[in-house]
Amino acid sequence: MYVIVDFTVVPVGTGVSLSEYVAACEEVLAKSGLTYQLHANGTNVEGEWEQVFSAIRHCHETLHAMGVPRIHTDIKAGTRTDRAQSMADKLNSLKVKLG
Amino acid sequence: MYVIVDFTVVPVGTGVSLSEYVAACEEVLAKSGLTYQLHANGTNVEGEWEQVFSAIRHCHETLHAMGVPRIHTDIKAGTRTDRAQSMADKLNSLKVKLG
Amino acid sequence: MYVIVDFTVVPVGTGVSLSEYVAACEEVLAKSGLTYQLHANGTNVEGEWEQVFSAIRHCHETLHAMGVPRIHTDIKAGTRTDRAQSMADKLNSLKVKLG
Amino acid sequence: MYVIVDFTVVPVGTGVSLSEYVAACEEVLAKSGLTYQLHANGTNVEGEWEQVFSAIRHCHETLHAMGVPRIHTDIKAGTRTDRAQSMADKLNSLKVKLG
Repeated sequence: MYVIVDFTVVPVGTGVSLSEYVAACEEVLAKSGLTYQLHANGTNVEGEWEQVFSAIRHCHETLHAMGVPRIHTDIKAGTRTDRAQSMADKLNSLKVKLG
Repeated sequence: MYVIVDFTVVPVGTGVSLSEYVAACEEVLAKSGLTYQLHANGTNVEGEWEQVFSAIRHCHETLHAMGVPRIHTDIKAGTRTDRAQSMADKLNSLKVKLG
Repeated sequence: MYVIVDFTVVPVGTGVSLSEYVAACEEVLAKSGLTYQLHANGTNVEGEWEQVFSAIRHCHETLHAMGVPRIHTDIKAGTRTDRAQSMADKLNSLKVKLG
Repeated sequence: MYVIVDFTVVPVGTGVSLSEYVAACEEVLAKSGLTYQLHANGTNVEGEWEQVFSAIRHCHETLHAMGVPRIHTDIKAGTRTDRAQSMADKLNSLKVKLG
């Protein structure tokens, strides 16, 4: 099943700067081969359900290995059966509406 | 990796009543053998990462099979390495604080 | 506009134990006069939009005053115009479906 | 209190295409004067707490007025007291880490 996900990893029990953890997670995604896009408050990624959630699990494992004791992650997951749609399609259909 | 999850499945492109879908998803969880608890805005579930996210994928598959064309699901996933903790532990440590 | 909210406050840049912050936020809600219910992964609260989001802002202010430098909060907000519905109604209509 | 928010509005009880609602909500944000940025799975917006959550409420009101009977919205809200930070700052500090 194909899924489009937006997720935000929030390390807890560390310092206040989180960018090194975002960077480590970005490296996990780069190696995963999945299509992804960082934005100001999270990361969009799309692919097969198992691969996407394995990549997010791998982010957790990587951050725990870096010493993060506790992680809170928000995930928005979208699936649809009426038609195939990628993240690029979503933005394009929106651009048409916005003119 | 053990994970505590709160998730809310939002069917899109259906009628306004969602309780039959929540009930179908609850049946998936009951069959999964995972520990879970429904609340007013979602479901808490805990277990091994793969099993928990397989159960949520199974919810999507079940609802799509019922005719739901599009599903948006919110997930909050928590992992920690400093100590083992269940959902019951979380509520108990909170009750101590609240007196 | 009446809203049913589920929210989870995640303090960042503090220790790994969060229960004192959950307790402080619970006190804010208790004083707000809003109907709320804690669960294993967050708090359900309902009321007028302005009051509910003021209460969550007050949680942020209270935690920052306790020394938390950074806060990430997840919020799920539901409104409907087809009929009035409280959190208790939601759980009841679900119980009917679950038998 | 300054807040950086990512939010996703999910209309329930309508058709499967949501882009007209995203466009209507985008118009609300454009008129609000707040800084915002659409991405594949939601909208990032920043500003004073009251203004940001009023804009999101206005999105709900606008969509209900368009005939949407039920709306589920996910919101991630971030505040910090250690330093001022905009969404552009967040992306820049990340780019430094990513090289």
